[in-house]
Amino acid sequence: MTGQIITSLDAMGGDAGPELVIPGADIALTRRPDLRFRLFGEEAKVRPLLDRYPRVRDASVFEHCDVSVAMTDKPSQALRRGRWRSSMWRSIEAVKKGDAGFAVSAGNTGALMAMAKFCLQSVEGVERPAIAAVWPTLRGESIVLDCGASIGADARQLFDFAIMGGAMARSLFDIPRPTIGLLNIGVEEQKGLEEIRSAGQLLRDANLPTLEYAGFVEGDDIGKGTVDVVVTEGFAGNIALKTAEGTARQIGTYLRAAMSRTLMARVGYFFARAAFARLREKMDPRRSNGGVFLGLNGIVIKSHGGTDPEGFASAIEIGYSMVRNELIPKINRDLAFHTEAREEAGDKIAQAGGM
Amino acid sequence: MTGQIITSLDAMGGDAGPELVIPGADIALTRRPDLRFRLFGEEAKVRPLLDRYPRVRDASVFEHCDVSVAMTDKPSQALRRGRWRSSMWRSIEAVKKGDAGFAVSAGNTGALMAMAKFCLQSVEGVERPAIAAVWPTLRGESIVLDCGASIGADARQLFDFAIMGGAMARSLFDIPRPTIGLLNIGVEEQKGLEEIRSAGQLLRDANLPTLEYAGFVEGDDIGKGTVDVVVTEGFAGNIALKTAEGTARQIGTYLRAAMSRTLMARVGYFFARAAFARLREKMDPRRSNGGVFLGLNGIVIKSHGGTDPEGFASAIEIGYSMVRNELIPKINRDLAFHTEAREEAGDKIAQAGGM
Repeated sequence: MTGQIITSLDAMGGDAGPELVIPGADIALTRRPDLRFRLFGEEAKVRPLLDRYPRVRDASVFEHCDVSVAMTDKPSQALRRGRWRSSMWRSIEAVKKGDAGFAVSAGNTGALMAMAKFCLQSVEGVERPAIAAVWPTLRGESIVLDCGASIGADARQLFDFAIMGGAMARSLFDIPRPTIGLLNIGVEEQKGLEEIRSAGQLLRDANLPTLEYAGFVEGDDIGKGTVDVVVTEGFAGNIALKTAEGTARQIGTYLRAAMSRTLMARVGYFFARAAFARLREKMDPRRSNGGVFLGLNGIVIKSHGGTDPEGFASAIEIGYSMVRNELIPKINRDLAFHTEAREEAGDKIAQAGGM
Repeated sequence: MTGQIITSLDAMGGDAGPELVIPGADIALTRRPDLRFRLFGEEAKVRPLLDRYPRVRDASVFEHCDVSVAMTDKPSQALRRGRWRSSMWRSIEAVKKGDAGFAVSAGNTGALMAMAKFCLQSVEGVERPAIAAVWPTLRGESIVLDCGASIGADARQLFDFAIMGGAMARSLFDIPRPTIGLLNIGVEEQKGLEEIRSAGQLLRDANLPTLEYAGFVEGDDIGKGTVDVVVTEGFAGNIALKTAEGTARQIGTYLRAAMSRTLMARVGYFFARAAFARLREKMDPRRSNGGVFLGLNGIVIKSHGGTDPEGFASAIEIGYSMVRNELIPKINRDLAFHTEAREEAGDKIAQAGGM
């Protein structure tokens, strides 16, 4: 637990660019004074912010980049225009070079994933990286993946997601054998998509010492915390994540309206304001801001593009904890350990006619 | 607005069977005294309940059925064992015969959909029925479909869902030209699945007078009420619905815990209890219990199997409103009206290589 932890930040990412990133870095630095930054961005835009946040300036090495990836760039455009020289690329590259322990960007997800894959490469044997979210539940926290790295997944890819998510849970939550559920509709064995059924079979057959396969789970099991890791393909995972965020925001709005409508409600709110503050903190979507790219040779964290500095600081802190807890070496050890099971799984799929 | 409205009830459906259905009918009858029931179920189990609820008994015609569909039956099993003679089948058949305006069952969704399709048949030209949910939003209510009738949907099926959902919105919400969004991940035009992109193109090209196509929406747009109708295939729709239910329940639990933790919070709760009651009502998942099967020649409502009598009564009331508002004739007129656009859509898909 010694030594500084260096994060590389894409200062141009997100709806507000440096106006988000530098104040966010300042908040993170308050909580984690041993953080140091490598900042990449357009000098004319970043400098004024660094002058306003001298603590961040003093904890940073800044490098000017001519090119910024736009929120609307397609991944292919972003790669063409931004490879080697954009602030997004350079922040990822700093991880590859070992100049930073992890990178954070609030830039567009598709471009960030394309660059991260190109620059860092997938871990050997992993076909597809995934985006993992830390999801607050009634039991604590669970990991949900894939939350939108790619659309669709075959049984082998779902199996890999389970292993990567399981390794992340072991590291972050300190559970020796986390439970894993496959997101499906209906919990009866016969329901659901072919690839989900097959992934379930593979997990059951593999009977891994580091994962406990708990069967299918449904959408409402995520918030209950029925399992430690929820595995799904990226389309459904992204829909689930955003729908939950939307529902939380909706209820928050109802609550504020209800508590201000009548005098009695306002009096009640006054007495219970400490309880409301706790509740607000529990419901705060900024607390779990930060999608972790799993399956690459390095840690890249995607922050929401529309978050505020508090949310961006949370994304930095997720990366901080992952580096402190040596997550990536742990994941890689788990993946290597499970190579045999994964190869058997691949063979079974090939025998079954190459799903 | 005159005359009685008759609903046929599968008295054996749901986790609690008649213990759910008969008390639920009693609640619905209190609110809608012009309801009448056709009840189907096992006499030995239903009679004692009718004796306890004499108002329901007096408003009902009861018919004994030997066979009940189990919550765990596969659709094929249910059809084999339960066609012609199960309480589920008979309640649907009453709609077909014109003995009831709509049917309600809390039985298993797969079996109910299989029987409803077999008995009532799809509306001409509609390839696949959908399950539509009425979703409470910050702007009021929206319709989300498909919430799990089938997995996956091609562009033409999504287009049909849009038309059916639009007709339902026109009838239930009294909006002349409801807005329709396609659920996707990322709102940029280039993102997402091929079939969703194609459906968007079809809707834009068709430029229907009764629907306003508003483009792609994301999971968090549902609760915002960004559009009146959210269209998606059944897997993602079911995940979204259950995830939102789970999140609402999770926040309700946080709220109860927060309000009972300290004396001050309890005092606050006391003053604000009317506001909390309103909030609880807004968040009550029972209020929107009832998935409406769209695209069949008759109304069938699926109630949650695990709901309570209050929730079952809500499912009955959704059907009641639909019959009162002549929803099915309206949907059928809309579908017929759009036949041309739908056939053009089909042709375009065929030309494009039969997605």
